Amino acid sequence: MALVVQKYGGTSMGSIERIRNVAKRVAKTYDEGNDLVVVVSAMSGETNKLVALANEMCEFPSEREYDVMVATGEQVSMSLLAMALQSMGYKAKSYCGFQLPIITDSAFSKARIEEIDDKRVREDLKNGVIVVVAGFQGIDRQGNLTTLGRGGSDTSAVAVAAAMKADVCEIYTDVDGIYTTDPRIVPEASKLEKISYDEMLEMASLGSKVLQIRSVEFAKKYDVVVHVRSSFNDNPGTLVTKEDAEMEAVLVSGITYNKDEAKISVLRVPDRPGIAAKLFSPLSAANITVDMIIQNVSHDGLNDMTFTVPKSDFKKALKIVQETAAEIGAGSVSSDENIAKVSIIGVGMRSHSGVACKMFETLSSEGINILMISTSEIKISCIIELKYSELAIRVLHEAFGLDKLSVKAE
Amino acid sequence: MALVVQKYGGTSMGSIERIRNVAKRVAKTYDEGNDLVVVVSAMSGETNKLVALANEMCEFPSEREYDVMVATGEQVSMSLLAMALQSMGYKAKSYCGFQLPIITDSAFSKARIEEIDDKRVREDLKNGVIVVVAGFQGIDRQGNLTTLGRGGSDTSAVAVAAAMKADVCEIYTDVDGIYTTDPRIVPEASKLEKISYDEMLEMASLGSKVLQIRSVEFAKKYDVVVHVRSSFNDNPGTLVTKEDAEMEAVLVSGITYNKDEAKISVLRVPDRPGIAAKLFSPLSAANITVDMIIQNVSHDGLNDMTFTVPKSDFKKALKIVQETAAEIGAGSVSSDENIAKVSIIGVGMRSHSGVACKMFETLSSEGINILMISTSEIKISCIIELKYSELAIRVLHEAFGLDKLSVKAE
Repeated sequence: MALVVQKYGGTSMGSIERIRNVAKRVAKTYDEGNDLVVVVSAMSGETNKLVALANEMCEFPSEREYDVMVATGEQVSMSLLAMALQSMGYKAKSYCGFQLPIITDSAFSKARIEEIDDKRVREDLKNGVIVVVAGFQGIDRQGNLTTLGRGGSDTSAVAVAAAMKADVCEIYTDVDGIYTTDPRIVPEASKLEKISYDEMLEMASLGSKVLQIRSVEFAKKYDVVVHVRSSFNDNPGTLVTKEDAEMEAVLVSGITYNKDEAKISVLRVPDRPGIAAKLFSPLSAANITVDMIIQNVSHDGLNDMTFTVPKSDFKKALKIVQETAAEIGAGSVSSDENIAKVSIIGVGMRSHSGVACKMFETLSSEGINILMISTSEIKISCIIELKYSELAIRVLHEAFGLDKLSVKAE
Repeated sequence: MALVVQKYGGTSMGSIERIRNVAKRVAKTYDEGNDLVVVVSAMSGETNKLVALANEMCEFPSEREYDVMVATGEQVSMSLLAMALQSMGYKAKSYCGFQLPIITDSAFSKARIEEIDDKRVREDLKNGVIVVVAGFQGIDRQGNLTTLGRGGSDTSAVAVAAAMKADVCEIYTDVDGIYTTDPRIVPEASKLEKISYDEMLEMASLGSKVLQIRSVEFAKKYDVVVHVRSSFNDNPGTLVTKEDAEMEAVLVSGITYNKDEAKISVLRVPDRPGIAAKLFSPLSAANITVDMIIQNVSHDGLNDMTFTVPKSDFKKALKIVQETAAEIGAGSVSSDENIAKVSIIGVGMRSHSGVACKMFETLSSEGINILMISTSEIKISCIIELKYSELAIRVLHEAFGLDKLSVKAE
């Protein structure tokens, strides 16, 4: 007998019929003798509907009111799941975030969980009750409702699992697990049996949207074993867990890509202290996130600086940079929207050399030019021309032997 | 400067556009220098949608889960109104029932308010904030969400007004106020300037659906002046208030009708002690509300008993009564669905005689046969044939001079 936390996303909870299926799956786990806490998202589409309503009323709705409103989505889905379980003869009880309570800070729409009181849940479990908890929401210490941001239900689930020292936190979603890369691009992509927290963090931040980043940070901090699996079949998924020796033996665990960035270069920037700050602070003031930044060694007191920004902010960013470049006496500004970022990720890089080299050679052998490079301890990212992105992913996937893993995509 | 509580119903809150109009009206009252607490219902149709969803999931949903779910309707509308006020430049803040809190008992779906904490509201008012409160909902002492039953937002508003000793509780609805009778039947129907709590209670329980009965009981108990008025114009409405001498001068204030009852007669019931209980306890056990009961004086140890039940329960009731009648050795059972109850109401009856007589004469002069009569201190009800109901209402309206009041329906 174990204590299991399960989380079902919006697609899994998308209709009365689907919620009934979730109920069956929950009941099965319960019947196997487990104590069970189920964290749910809103029915898919509901949150968007609520957001649209808020935006129709007010261009910039107050965040406090906005959170109160969107929190209703989970309040509906949690009670529907409890009803479904009750209609099958199980004892079930639902709790809003404020009812446990799940205490957060007061950063509306992106609140952070500070504390979870599991007293009521423990008592219910003791009485054989299946507990359903609304994901995505909490309450701050002043009694205001808060929400955790998109994908926040993952974090709710991991936080509940951490607070209750659950044996596992199962995240049910519409994919089978974490893949070595996007199976739509590489049909040979394999499902990973397990992946370390750090690799998952890199994957998540680089565009793999299976888990909310913050939930992985939370899992890492509190050592929660997360099992990502599909709510539409019974296949085992991917365990997100502590690094082990087996993982380190693998050079590269996954390949991710991101086509949502654009590149801006400022040429012949005078090489003076403080010049980088001058260039980037107006962007930061305009709330534009700068991702990769490359500065080459200086020639004749002049630098070329290149960086990437989200495509959605590209026009705004370009205008700001052109103004700043003129102010600081830099040369011309060039830009490129037709780029992609391709990254290889793996904890094995820490202990093996030559991984970067192999990546560059693989790309080069296909005639793919590398425009920018950035690395971390367990990741190497290259900016390449957009049109090569699928090719790059395929050849890297093959070069690092990822298509030879045993579990294939279905 | 006064403390005003305003309540807006589902129709007034029925769309983004209508909520904007409510916001304008709220802002106007605020600009006139009043402190303002606004209680809102869910957008019209929303509660029905949620109820349908619950019923689709489960034939008999758990009341605890049901309440959690339907409470979301007001949570959405309250935040929309707060956003609308904010977008007009006003300070506004919304509160769910649990946030004040509004403490109720644990009778889910028909909870009674026990206590309201107005500390947060008072502080907000002091800071110039317009406070919006979700009607219909509260929280019990165990932390479960509760709802007050259909029309419960009226009661929320009156309860908040009572707790805060507000100067007036304005109930905005889709009618102009309380009329002497239904203007769709009698075009000459007049709007009443004021009406006593007791008269309003009789009106409400007899089928006039403007105010939830419990809200009137609450208003009476705590002496809250209720102003019923339209959210679609600026006409003064009707004050529901303490009885005064002026009211007593009027014989009859209003005429109501109810076409939703059916009549069952049990003939030749043996006149033995306990026989009435024998007849009615099976109905009560089946949760059927019996309204008027008439038992004539006994002849030869046999009685005729006649009573009315809601039409929706008629078939079920008839079957039960036929069984019971056979058991207790009564004669035949007859029934009639084509009846209507017409009632005249007025506190003036207490101090004036001849009112009943005038009612009977008026009906008789039109050839309308009276099938049953029942009276209270301030009300006389007659059961007549359904086809005469409109005629009866019209002639009574004229006979008691109700078409000569100054304020006419528009």
